[in-house]
Amino acid sequence: MTIEPEHPPDDVQQHLRDVQELLARQKVVENLVHRQDMPRHALVEGLLHKQHLAELQNRLDEFHPADIAYVLESLPLDDRLVVWNLVKAERDGEILLEVSDAVRESLIETMDSHELKAAAESLDADELADLAPDLPPEVFEDVLKSLDSEAREQLRAAMSYPEDTVGARMEFDMVTVREDVSLEVVLRYLRRFDKLPDHTDKLFVVDREDHLKGLLTLESLLTNDPEDEVAEVMRTETVISFEPDDDADEAAQAFERYDLVSAPVIDKEGRVVGRLTVTDVVDYIREESEQEILSKAGLKEEEDIFASVWDSVKNRWAWLALNMVTAIIASRVIGLFEDSISQLVALAALMPIVAGIGGNSGNQTITMIVRAIAMGQVEQSALKRLLRKELGVALVNGVVWGGFLGLMAWWLYASWQLGAVMTSAMTLNLLLSACAGVLIPMIRTRMGKDPALGGSVMITALTDSGGFFIFLGLATIFLL
Amino acid sequence: MTIEPEHPPDDVQQHLRDVQELLARQKVVENLVHRQDMPRHALVEGLLHKQHLAELQNRLDEFHPADIAYVLESLPLDDRLVVWNLVKAERDGEILLEVSDAVRESLIETMDSHELKAAAESLDADELADLAPDLPPEVFEDVLKSLDSEAREQLRAAMSYPEDTVGARMEFDMVTVREDVSLEVVLRYLRRFDKLPDHTDKLFVVDREDHLKGLLTLESLLTNDPEDEVAEVMRTETVISFEPDDDADEAAQAFERYDLVSAPVIDKEGRVVGRLTVTDVVDYIREESEQEILSKAGLKEEEDIFASVWDSVKNRWAWLALNMVTAIIASRVIGLFEDSISQLVALAALMPIVAGIGGNSGNQTITMIVRAIAMGQVEQSALKRLLRKELGVALVNGVVWGGFLGLMAWWLYASWQLGAVMTSAMTLNLLLSACAGVLIPMIRTRMGKDPALGGSVMITALTDSGGFFIFLGLATIFLL
Repeated sequence: MTIEPEHPPDDVQQHLRDVQELLARQKVVENLVHRQDMPRHALVEGLLHKQHLAELQNRLDEFHPADIAYVLESLPLDDRLVVWNLVKAERDGEILLEVSDAVRESLIETMDSHELKAAAESLDADELADLAPDLPPEVFEDVLKSLDSEAREQLRAAMSYPEDTVGARMEFDMVTVREDVSLEVVLRYLRRFDKLPDHTDKLFVVDREDHLKGLLTLESLLTNDPEDEVAEVMRTETVISFEPDDDADEAAQAFERYDLVSAPVIDKEGRVVGRLTVTDVVDYIREESEQEILSKAGLKEEEDIFASVWDSVKNRWAWLALNMVTAIIASRVIGLFEDSISQLVALAALMPIVAGIGGNSGNQTITMIVRAIAMGQVEQSALKRLLRKELGVALVNGVVWGGFLGLMAWWLYASWQLGAVMTSAMTLNLLLSACAGVLIPMIRTRMGKDPALGGSVMITALTDSGGFFIFLGLATIFLL
Repeated sequence: MTIEPEHPPDDVQQHLRDVQELLARQKVVENLVHRQDMPRHALVEGLLHKQHLAELQNRLDEFHPADIAYVLESLPLDDRLVVWNLVKAERDGEILLEVSDAVRESLIETMDSHELKAAAESLDADELADLAPDLPPEVFEDVLKSLDSEAREQLRAAMSYPEDTVGARMEFDMVTVREDVSLEVVLRYLRRFDKLPDHTDKLFVVDREDHLKGLLTLESLLTNDPEDEVAEVMRTETVISFEPDDDADEAAQAFERYDLVSAPVIDKEGRVVGRLTVTDVVDYIREESEQEILSKAGLKEEEDIFASVWDSVKNRWAWLALNMVTAIIASRVIGLFEDSISQLVALAALMPIVAGIGGNSGNQTITMIVRAIAMGQVEQSALKRLLRKELGVALVNGVVWGGFLGLMAWWLYASWQLGAVMTSAMTLNLLLSACAGVLIPMIRTRMGKDPALGGSVMITALTDSGGFFIFLGLATIFLL
């Protein structure tokens, strides 16, 4: 492809279709030959087979590693392994970095320790740190031995930071310059590079001990007079940097807020130890939001859509078990009122509405509060104000929707008393769900825990059992 | 702040606390004076008040617009407006761009048309396009008249594209160069700029009619010999570009996949018309994932946490109403079996478990399928394979969890027949939820609709009503 610009999204889908077609053609050949089991055909098959695979291999060689990763993720296991075996060994490492965890596991399982070692050695220290947890320990030991001492130190550093810190996400490649040279010297220095580290939009100005003195953006390097000294044009105010222990989430928010492409990572003494780039941040944001969506739906981790039934069951059972416990509790609450239900069977039909709407409303509240806490917008001092507001919303909803349902119950079962109980129970359960929606995340935050985790299950459990209890309790007191 | 690097995340929280303290101090003064209503105090109050406000104003002047936006979002309405009035008028525009939609509305409501016009006129065409929908029509008309013809054309163009396309997100600022000049000439040309457009990591090489010929990265500009011609070092292969009509989501995936910082946007004839940057993409990714999380919880849009009760009710009622309709349908399904329940009241206690677990399991399936479809990993041809796998998972879960619940029902109500009905109903409802979890998003995709939308409500409705029907139906047939 020369001048004509490509459209990558269509492209990668086209890539996938090409691969699928080549795989399908190969299978047709295999089937043909298997049906007519003659030696001559075996020969033809061998040739044709090789021809298709060679064509496929040529196509794969042209693909970007991210595109190969995409193709691998989109293929069922058997086809996936055919493609994986055609990929040039020296590209294995970068492709393993790009695929999802589940697919990476399926690929690593098929590689022997020699191949794994070769793949791992093709990577930078920070990339290796990402791959390390998936490698067999003996392979990792071998790789560690093959590194020079600087890279080994970097790898150890990268792996020593918890997953959600800046340290675990930073890169070690960067360009540093001194402040007492002219821009001309910097320009000449850069010309000696074949290639700059990815996403270099600024150079780090440091002293002899690597202390950060300022930032020289490529923009100021390019728009200022080459005779100027670095010290004159470098940025020293509002230099945004991070420490390795900083929370990756806060760094991501800063990248978004200040539209950064790269930022230095410094240690406690102000020495530059690494660099954080927008790629790391984009990956982080995507991972976090995926994780949030998956965990809200009760999936432990991203699932290879072509995973075995057994792997899928393992990914999903914990959530189902948890929900079953809360469902059994709610069921036992109903069990307390079996006498009442047998006297007035309408209660059985109406009770799920009270519980369900309470759960929905509580989830709205908790989602909003959790988001606001994550953005740092909620001080503990705002508790009363938020509680007052959410109770207000619950009261309005209780009167409006509860009133409507009360009228419906009255009309269906010709009992205004039943209607009144319905309206009261709805309102009380909505007030309960509002309190819980505000208090659960606020209390979890005060206890230093993640406000998002498990909030949805807790609130649903509470509004289910609570809704049944309130409705059946009120009915038992006032109707029977 | 000079050399010492800042830590922006702590910083912005500190900013917020500073502002809150200054606001609180001012209120103390106001209260003091109001209590002792004497003219002399009024004078003092006036001075102190002014002094605190002046101090606050000075602090605000130092803040990054994104930080001011953050502070505004974190303050209740009355404090928010105090701060907003202290912000320098020429910064209004950029701050309005940064705040969330709900907060923007609350700010715009307090501005007169003159202020709004001034704020709008400080923005670029592409920024103005984002703000335009929130402006009163007469203000927008005025602003349009004040633009030069090029900017007006750009604004019209940006506003003519649907929200989720590249065209609506692109910027118009960019640097283009010719291919027949030397890098030295390019370097001299750049020195004439005070400032490059944000996130310029590459220059676009174009001919006289603005047709894209290639890309000149700053990297190759800096690492190659200045004597080289642009044509020799520019990239012409795998030039990734977009058209204005392209889906923003696909562009975002391409930016992530190929780690882009900026990319040209070209029209059908290959002429460069704009530029897409990673900032736009980061914003888009964040917005989309926010939107997904909010809509899953039934919130129409991001909510100002300090919104009035009434605004919150409006943001949430549609989802509650929809859920109420499905709850009423489920309730009527139960109503069909009131005779059975009155004969065997244990059914009322057990039925919510069948419905609830079915809903949870269905949501797991649909979340996984929707994600895979969004990533383009699911061809319609995979339908059978996915269905087979999900039915397998459902069967395992049905036998394991359904078996457990059946034993529990047998133990609680001393009836093995009830236990058998429980196990069968659980299994059937899980199979139903698996079918629905695969088919709903696949069919919606085939119909050209968003597979994510409303799937969760549909599947919950189906597994609720379906679960009640299956369980109570089986019980009626086999137990009574």
